[in-house]
Amino acid sequence: MEGYRRFLALLVSALLLGFVAVVCSIVWVLRYREGLGWDGGAAEFNWHPVLVVTAIIVYRLPWTWKCSKLLMKFIHAGLNTIAMILAIVSMVAVFEYHNARKIPNMYSLHSWIGLTLVFPKALTMNLFFPLRAALMPIHVYSGLLIFVAVIASALMGITEKLLFSLQSPAYSESPPEAIFVNCLGLLIVTFGALILWMASRPHWKRPPEENDLISQLHCKSF
Amino acid sequence: MEGYRRFLALLVSALLLGFVAVVCSIVWVLRYREGLGWDGGAAEFNWHPVLVVTAIIVYRLPWTWKCSKLLMKFIHAGLNTIAMILAIVSMVAVFEYHNARKIPNMYSLHSWIGLTLVFPKALTMNLFFPLRAALMPIHVYSGLLIFVAVIASALMGITEKLLFSLQSPAYSESPPEAIFVNCLGLLIVTFGALILWMASRPHWKRPPEENDLISQLHCKSF
Repeated sequence: MEGYRRFLALLVSALLLGFVAVVCSIVWVLRYREGLGWDGGAAEFNWHPVLVVTAIIVYRLPWTWKCSKLLMKFIHAGLNTIAMILAIVSMVAVFEYHNARKIPNMYSLHSWIGLTLVFPKALTMNLFFPLRAALMPIHVYSGLLIFVAVIASALMGITEKLLFSLQSPAYSESPPEAIFVNCLGLLIVTFGALILWMASRPHWKRPPEENDLISQLHCKSF
Repeated sequence: MEGYRRFLALLVSALLLGFVAVVCSIVWVLRYREGLGWDGGAAEFNWHPVLVVTAIIVYRLPWTWKCSKLLMKFIHAGLNTIAMILAIVSMVAVFEYHNARKIPNMYSLHSWIGLTLVFPKALTMNLFFPLRAALMPIHVYSGLLIFVAVIASALMGITEKLLFSLQSPAYSESPPEAIFVNCLGLLIVTFGALILWMASRPHWKRPPEENDLISQLHCKSF
């Protein structure tokens, strides 16, 4: 694999960035907001940013063709399933919070785009196992597009939440929470940019001639 | 060129979508907001969404290798320069509006990401003319990444503006303006998805063996 060390360095950086982003989202709700809970209150809402940030980070990580293709398929599908479950639980949290507070659901562009993404995501995941070669470009494209759109949606969600929650001092007065959560947004963008770079390099793509070796379930030694 | 008709159909669809998005942004500020002007008031702010939407649409359009490479380079650089100028004027409009109203600048994630994008964009454009083959992947990647990030930033901007401007009825009550502008957001996302699909198909990439024919300035006939 050409530039394998550079790939590894990028992967470790992405993992680190992702980990820091998840920690930051937890620090946000624990230190600045009402913590985490499942009581229809603000603490239930707070699962939404934490789980969505975690879902983004989990979304697309292991990316190597030194391991058997079938194993990689299972890891890829498994991580995507976890991301999907986190996303759905995070949406349930916000719907319950809205309903308990009599706040309307599904009025904002953030909610339109966020909920819309569940359907193509489910479709892309269904396309995965019986995947014919002809569908592969659509699968890869839609996977990356959903990844980017989820990040855009998270940024809109952060914007909404800061505008709603910060009253005195307001968002426009840049209190520490505003700076902290803006930085979380930049972290997520940087993480996304790294993953997109790794995923779009042609020389890091699994070569087609290895596609037949799908019987092994274990990693080959490097 | 493989699938040339399909490429053309997609290009025309993207152009149409883009045109509709620009018209929608103008309808938004003329029908629902205070129109357009340059007086430090809301009408000056309104140049910001109109010019940013136009900049997104102008950003990346002609994409054919049937024309000479030098001509394509000039068109690509020209459109990107126009997009850059529109983006800068749109930022001046919002800074002047903020200053006139004593609203702080640069506090939101939208402003952080939006303004940050100007620098890599300028860098990517500077890389353009003396472009060595080794830098081409970085140029293409950063161009598309900036394109995606500008769209994400526009979606955050729409979210902010609707939350600020819609008071009675509020954004959460889904008045016609909210629905209309949410649809504008979806239009921009669809436009972006189309452009990304066209830009990432390997068989629509200019083949390297034509790279030497850069002396002609005119299109070859199809």
